This record gives sequence, C-alpha cells and structure tokens, in this order.
Amino acid sequence: MAKVDINCDMGESFGAYTLGRDAEILEYVTSANIACGFHAGDPATMRKTVKLALEKNVGIGVHPGLQDLVGFGRREINLSAQEAYDLVVYQIGALSGFVKSEGGQIQHVKPHGALFNMAAKNAKLAEAIAEAVYKVDPQMIFFGLAGSELVKAGEKIGLRTASEVFSDRTYQQDGSLTSRLHANALIKDHGEAVKQVIRMVKEGKVPSVQGTDVSIKVDTVCIHGDGESALDFAKHITAALNEAGISIAKISSFIE
Amino acid sequence: MAKVDINCDMGESFGAYTLGRDAEILEYVTSANIACGFHAGDPATMRKTVKLALEKNVGIGVHPGLQDLVGFGRREINLSAQEAYDLVVYQIGALSGFVKSEGGQIQHVKPHGALFNMAAKNAKLAEAIAEAVYKVDPQMIFFGLAGSELVKAGEKIGLRTASEVFSDRTYQQDGSLTSRLHANALIKDHGEAVKQVIRMVKEGKVPSVQGTDVSIKVDTVCIHGDGESALDFAKHITAALNEAGISIAKISSFIE
Amino acid sequence: MAKVDINCDMGESFGAYTLGRDAEILEYVTSANIACGFHAGDPATMRKTVKLALEKNVGIGVHPGLQDLVGFGRREINLSAQEAYDLVVYQIGALSGFVKSEGGQIQHVKPHGALFNMAAKNAKLAEAIAEAVYKVDPQMIFFGLAGSELVKAGEKIGLRTASEVFSDRTYQQDGSLTSRLHANALIKDHGEAVKQVIRMVKEGKVPSVQGTDVSIKVDTVCIHGDGESALDFAKHITAALNEAGISIAKISSFIE
Amino acid sequence: MAKVDINCDMGESFGAYTLGRDAEILEYVTSANIACGFHAGDPATMRKTVKLALEKNVGIGVHPGLQDLVGFGRREINLSAQEAYDLVVYQIGALSGFVKSEGGQIQHVKPHGALFNMAAKNAKLAEAIAEAVYKVDPQMIFFGLAGSELVKAGEKIGLRTASEVFSDRTYQQDGSLTSRLHANALIKDHGEAVKQVIRMVKEGKVPSVQGTDVSIKVDTVCIHGDGESALDFAKHITAALNEAGISIAKISSFIE
Repeated sequence: MAKVDINCDMGESFGAYTLGRDAEILEYVTSANIACGFHAGDPATMRKTVKLALEKNVGIGVHPGLQDLVGFGRREINLSAQEAYDLVVYQIGALSGFVKSEGGQIQHVKPHGALFNMAAKNAKLAEAIAEAVYKVDPQMIFFGLAGSELVKAGEKIGLRTASEVFSDRTYQQDGSLTSRLHANALIKDHGEAVKQVIRMVKEGKVPSVQGTDVSIKVDTVCIHGDGESALDFAKHITAALNEAGISIAKISSFIE
Repeated sequence: MAKVDINCDMGESFGAYTLGRDAEILEYVTSANIACGFHAGDPATMRKTVKLALEKNVGIGVHPGLQDLVGFGRREINLSAQEAYDLVVYQIGALSGFVKSEGGQIQHVKPHGALFNMAAKNAKLAEAIAEAVYKVDPQMIFFGLAGSELVKAGEKIGLRTASEVFSDRTYQQDGSLTSRLHANALIKDHGEAVKQVIRMVKEGKVPSVQGTDVSIKVDTVCIHGDGESALDFAKHITAALNEAGISIAKISSFIE
Repeated sequence: MAKVDINCDMGESFGAYTLGRDAEILEYVTSANIACGFHAGDPATMRKTVKLALEKNVGIGVHPGLQDLVGFGRREINLSAQEAYDLVVYQIGALSGFVKSEGGQIQHVKPHGALFNMAAKNAKLAEAIAEAVYKVDPQMIFFGLAGSELVKAGEKIGLRTASEVFSDRTYQQDGSLTSRLHANALIKDHGEAVKQVIRMVKEGKVPSVQGTDVSIKVDTVCIHGDGESALDFAKHITAALNEAGISIAKISSFIE
Repeated sequence: MAKVDINCDMGESFGAYTLGRDAEILEYVTSANIACGFHAGDPATMRKTVKLALEKNVGIGVHPGLQDLVGFGRREINLSAQEAYDLVVYQIGALSGFVKSEGGQIQHVKPHGALFNMAAKNAKLAEAIAEAVYKVDPQMIFFGLAGSELVKAGEKIGLRTASEVFSDRTYQQDGSLTSRLHANALIKDHGEAVKQVIRMVKEGKVPSVQGTDVSIKVDTVCIHGDGESALDFAKHITAALNEAGISIAKISSFIE
C-alpha cells in the first residue's frame, strides 16, 4: 500500500503576534516543521508547539530560516555556504533544547522559505545545509524539494532524505516548480490539487504546464497551515488520500 | 590538595565586531562561558569558540543571557520565570548544536549579566533557570554566585552546582557582592585580588567591606577576558594559585 | 462645551503579522499613536498607517517603546535616563520621515507600554523623555498619564501636555491606575467604562476603588484597537460622549 | 581651483562594541556618513557621532543600510523597491531626530554596503531610494557611485547629486569598480591610490585595469575609517590633495 507523509509549517507565532491554526491542523498532518526564531517563532512558541506535536504524535521537524523576521525568511539573502551551515546548526540546536526538555526527539529538518528555494538550486548551499544536519545528528531525516540539489546533497552525505512535493503548485517539464511570478504557479482548486497529489503518489508522475508528464518521487506532501481554507484543505486531502487507498503516515515510520 | 576551576566569558564577538582575546585567554582558564546570540555572540562565533575550547581542552559552558544585544544583557528586564526558562532552554540548545557538530559535550551552564544577577536574588527565576538546565540535560554543571538563590535552586533540583566567586569584587558581610554603584565594589590591584582569591579557596573566608570575615565556598573563580589587563591578570592569577599550592582544574574533573 | 480627544495605539503590525483593525478604528478616534519599530511596527506599516491617518484627518502621534519586540514593549527594562532619551529621539525621527514624505506633520508623542508606566512614576525617566520631545520639536504635544511624572515633566520643560485617562481602568485614591495584578483593575462592562469617562470629562472626578472621589484632568481618552470588542466599544463611547454633550476633537484643536 | 569633498563611514559602533576611530578621522574628512541602526550604529552612537560631526564642522550624512546587523549590511537581500524606499525613509528620519535635537541639519544621504552596490546597478532600486530622499527633504544631497544608476536616479528626480569615487579601488573600462572577487580590485599602495585620486579630480580620468583611460566625474572621495592604516591614509591623502592644488571642502559648499 502506498504511503505518504503530510507536513506543515508550524510555530510561526511571535510574541504578541499569532499566526496559523496549529492545534487544529496538527490533527491532520503527520510531520510538523517548527520555526526556530530566525524567520518566525520565539522560545515560548517553540516550547508550546513541540509539546502540542508530541501530544498529537506528530513528527517534530526543525524549520531553520534566514535571519529576517520582518521578511518572514522569504527574501533571498546572499549568504555564504558557511553562514548557511552555521545558522542551520544553531536552529537545529535551539529546537532540540525544547524537544529534549519535553522528552521527545527530532524527526526531520526542512529549510524554510528563501533558504529552501536558494538551496534547491545551489549545490554548495544544499551541501552546507545537509552537512549541518548530518554533523548534529545523522539520524535526522532531511526534507528537500523532489529532484532538487537539496535531495542530492542529503543523499550524498548519507542522510535519509525525503522528497517533498507541494499540493498547490504547478510543475515545469524539468521537474522544477513554476515560479510564483507566473500566473499559473498556483492550483487554487482544492479538487485539482488533491487529484495531482494522488497521481504523484500512485504513479510517480505529474503533468507539467508544458503538457508532458514529468517523473516525480513523493515521500511527503507540504500543505499550508494559515489562510482561511487551510483547515478545510487539510481535511479534504487526508480524506481523499485515504479513499484513494494511500496510507498517511509519519515519514519516520516508512522511509528507508 | 585544594582545587579550583577558572572560568571566563567567551565568544562575545558579533558579526563585524570583535570583543575579547579568546584564543589567548583560553590558555589560562579551565572553563569557558560561551555567549549564545541573545546578549552577544552569533552562530559563526559560537562555532569558532567551541572549536577553540575543544582544541585547548577547556570545559565548554553555555552562557545564556537576556535578549538585549544593544545592552549586552546587562540591563534587568522584568521577565517572568517562564520566559527565563524558555530563553535558557533555547540558548542551551543553540550552543549544543555546535558542541555536537564539533564532537564535544557541554560541561556547564552559567547565566549571564542581568539574568545572573536577578536570579541570584530571586528564587523563582533561579528555580526556573535550574529547571531549564535539568530538563535539557541533568548532567550539566550549574554555575551560580556562591551563597545565592542560583546555587540553592541548582542543589534543590539535583544538579551538580558550582559556587562561583569573582576575583575582582568586594563582598558584603551577608556574603553578597558589593553593588557596582559603590566606589569600593571593585578590587583594582591585581595582587590584592589574587590574595583574596587564594584565601577564599584555602580558608573558605573572605573579608567583608564591613571588616568581618564571611564564610564562602569556592568551586570556580570568574576572571575577565576583555580589557587591557585581562591577559596579564590571567597569567598572574594562575601563577599565584599554583605557587600557593592550589591546583587549577576543570570543574568537571573534581566536582562531586 | 466640554471637549475631549480620543487616542488609540496603531500601526502595530509587523512583517507578515497583522494586529489591530486600524482602518476601522480610525473612523472613531481623533489621535493615533503609531508604533515605530522598537516594540511593534516596521517601516512599511509606519508608512501605511501615517497615510491612513492623514486620509482620515486623525492627529498623528509618535508611540516610542522599549526595544523588545518579542515582549511587545510591555516588560520593564532597567534603562538609564540617557538611554530613554536616545530611543525616544530615534523613534520620533523615524516616524517623522514618513510623516514628512507623506506631507503631514506630527501632532503628539505618547510613550508606550512599560516605558510609559515606568516614566509615569520615575521623574528622571519622565524628564529625559520630555526633553527628547522638546529638543526634536517643541511644538509636539506630550501625552502622559493624568497626574503622573510624565505630565509634570512635560509642563516643566514647556511642552503642551495632555492628561490622559484610560476608559477601561479603575483608579486608586491617589489618582494612580489600579495595577493589572489586581482583579479589579479592569472595567469590563462597556456601559460602566463610558459612564466613568463621561464623569471624568464633565466633573473632573473619578471614583477610586477605595470609594472616595479623586480629582482628575482629562484631555484625551485612550481606547484599545485590538481585541474582538474594540470596534464596538469605539462606536459606543463616541456615541455616548456626543449624547452627553461632549465634543470629540483632535487634541491639537483645543489644547492650550 | 579644483574642489573635492572627502567622505567616510562613521558611527558604526553598537552597544558594547566599538568600531572605527571616528574622532580622529573627523579631523581629515569633510562629510560623515552616519550609520542608523540597521546595519550598524545605535541611538546612543548616533547622538554622539552627530554631536562630534557638528563640533568638527563636518557635513552630516545619513548612511542607510539593509536590516542585517550580523552581516553589517554587506550581504545582498533581494528586497523590493518599495522595501528599499521604506527603509531609507525610516533611517533618514531616525538620524534627523538627533540632528534636530543637536541643532544641526542633514547635508547628504549615501546608501551603505550591499544596498549601495545593488542600487548602483538596479535602476528601480536606485529610483526608489532617490525618491525616499527627495520626499523627506529635497534639499539633501544624494551620493552615488560615479556613473551609476544611483547618480542617474538622483539627477532624474531633481536632487543635487554627488558623484563618488573610491580611493583604493581599481576601475573597469566601462567605469564600474573591479569586483572584490578579483585580485586586482584593491590598490594597496597609499601613494598609488592618492595619485589615482588626484588624476581623477584634475583630469576627470582614471586608468582602467584593461589599460585604457575612462572618463569619471568626482565630487567626493570615499576613504575608510577603520583598519590600522586608516588614519595614516587620511593624513596622507589630504596633504597630497592640498599639495596638488586641490581644495578639500564640504560638498554642500560647492555642489551646484
């Protein structure tokens, strides 16, 4: 039976600012990517989110981002590979403090936002990030965009590496995501988005915007935790995957 | 033979800003308190300082501070015990990332600046900090001002707790430090400072500014790493302690 | 005819984080206290909020706070009078950039949160803040808690100074606010809150929690801009003041 | 008689961290570019630096940078033109607070580091920055790399615009600076550096690394304020320019 993990960004609140419907979304996902205070999150939010994930038996992930709170880690910063290594080690460590003190363990690491996007295309950055993960704890699973430099870097250094797809994005014929600068980057219809995910999981194929099918590996599907329809979509996709005979399970339970 | 640990704050550089003569001072101390990015330090500095301490076989300590970079963590912030707990867990974790990736292990935790001073007098803060240390890893040694609430809180929760004295500060007859607001707070003469330390270690006594002797326990002596005479003083005190038949050793090698 | 200004904190959003219903609340208030990036707010939010206030013909105020984003400027920091002076000058300047570029002018300055509370009781802090305001532009109106050190400091240095009351707080017989640590600090019933404000404006009196009346001067009333009932309360209090024959007007239109 | 301004970055200290020899360098320059707290500097440093510049009768400049303290504003951040506009307005404002409270006025604005370099090549960024300057106060002089998009944007919007050259950098035949990635980017010999500056001022020409002469306009020359030889170089270049019959004067005294 086909298996897939569902991951979602979590713990993005900051001080007096609340973001996301973490407690509700955690009912539907199997892996949580928890912000570590650089692009979002703060120590109190990290503690609460780790606790919540443990209660719901959701896999705990580190979600390291660029040090750009006002930009939510979404703006590319031209940092060196060494700087990327350092900030990933720091943020894995910071979250591990809360995971240890709450009696859990880290399942995975997934870079956030612009760091994720830059490293998907830049082998040096991807290798620096994978090395950071490996050197802190080689048992952690490494999440990267399916087919990207992140996945290559993770496999190269010897990490268990999960190929990630996005439920609501269209793909180019080279397997890359369509840039958000293009009108057709997003799939807004929930039904279509789910249909695409099911085909990716079952057949390992996704239609490109150019019309041809592209091969794609899917270990984990990213869904969104904020926005009005986030919760509806979470319910919808989990129900549809189940109906399609796809088992939704924590990545650590089935990755090799 | 009497034993004592010598500790010093380290890793206080930040980005383009350099502070302290870490590499040189590390030749003379046995324990390093490494800043974790809240009051000083940054990921690159933390990595370099951990590496240096491991090379010199100096005990690695977490030095968590208040989130006040511009104030260097020296201004009291009226935070809750929960907030203190959270920021200590976060910072222990952050440093542990570098310690793990460099193949070392954390020896101790010593709160910094205003956090140290507030918790020395405030049992609730002290207990929250001690609990943070204990819950992340009960094997870490907890540093606190000799006779303070920090030491009490560490012992109460079951941490190995080191009593710390300051080489260049005068004491009140109740065993507390003379406030820096008073003219006689600092001992500026190196000879006198060293003489006081030797007596504290050998006899467990320190003269108060009121004239009477005060009992004091000394496991570790704090010296400064910046300022023009820091290196001279480090050389001076280590030589004098040796001459006085006091063995200088890492706290983890002799604390019970 | 009695006149009163109604002020509200504004521009507290930050990056991806939205806080407050500024556009709606601006329909009901006459003065806006705009955050300047230290405790809340960011350059984009400041620009948008200044623009909005100008469009609605609402008086623009600088709302300088402590540099504590994660604590929203609500935690006391033991800063020096010089540090308070400096951060107020900085934040007045920062907002003035947007006010000038949008073609407006600053009406008033009101310190935020813990800075406001500390200075209300601490004459040195209050005088440093009043001096900062005066030296940047003596035409700006200075807001302070009615009867507090802030009001005294403003008057002393020669600023036009507005006495502020809070619509939803109870008072002690010495004229100070009941601490939020006490159960009876807040007036939760909208009707009662409005009644108290009307009496303060018309009679210059407020009942203390001890039962006796206290004399109080009211130039401006602070209402809240976030929370579910903020908008309802804004509508309610403005209607009730009008009915009571009290004219709601921008502070700059009637202060002497 | 040929005239030229000499500018230098100033006020880059932060909290406990000291950088640069501002007081000494101010004896030799005519314009100071003062950091505003985003890439370096803090409110106290800004106040002191403004005061010092006024005492020395040096032209006060705003030196806005990217919000990247740990990177000293030297790493490119992929920000929008609107974001660049906003952070320049904010920082001009912030410095203007200190300039007003000290009784001076702002002479010029010069973007810092990566913001300067990105805008030199990117017309949209350059125009956003020039617009920010113009809208806050069109009397301020705008500094930009000679021949760059910054200079074009400044002239286009109607600002008095100063063409800046660097004393220690080599030039390409298209008039751009040789990238620091190339070995020959820097002129390390003081004598050669000064010779190049004198020729630029007197003849409006600079030799390119390709061998041909390039036309260049020089209103102001940038020198460095930190590093061991900064003060020596400052003395050297001012003496040499004087000997060569070039008058060193504040840009505001001679720009048209």
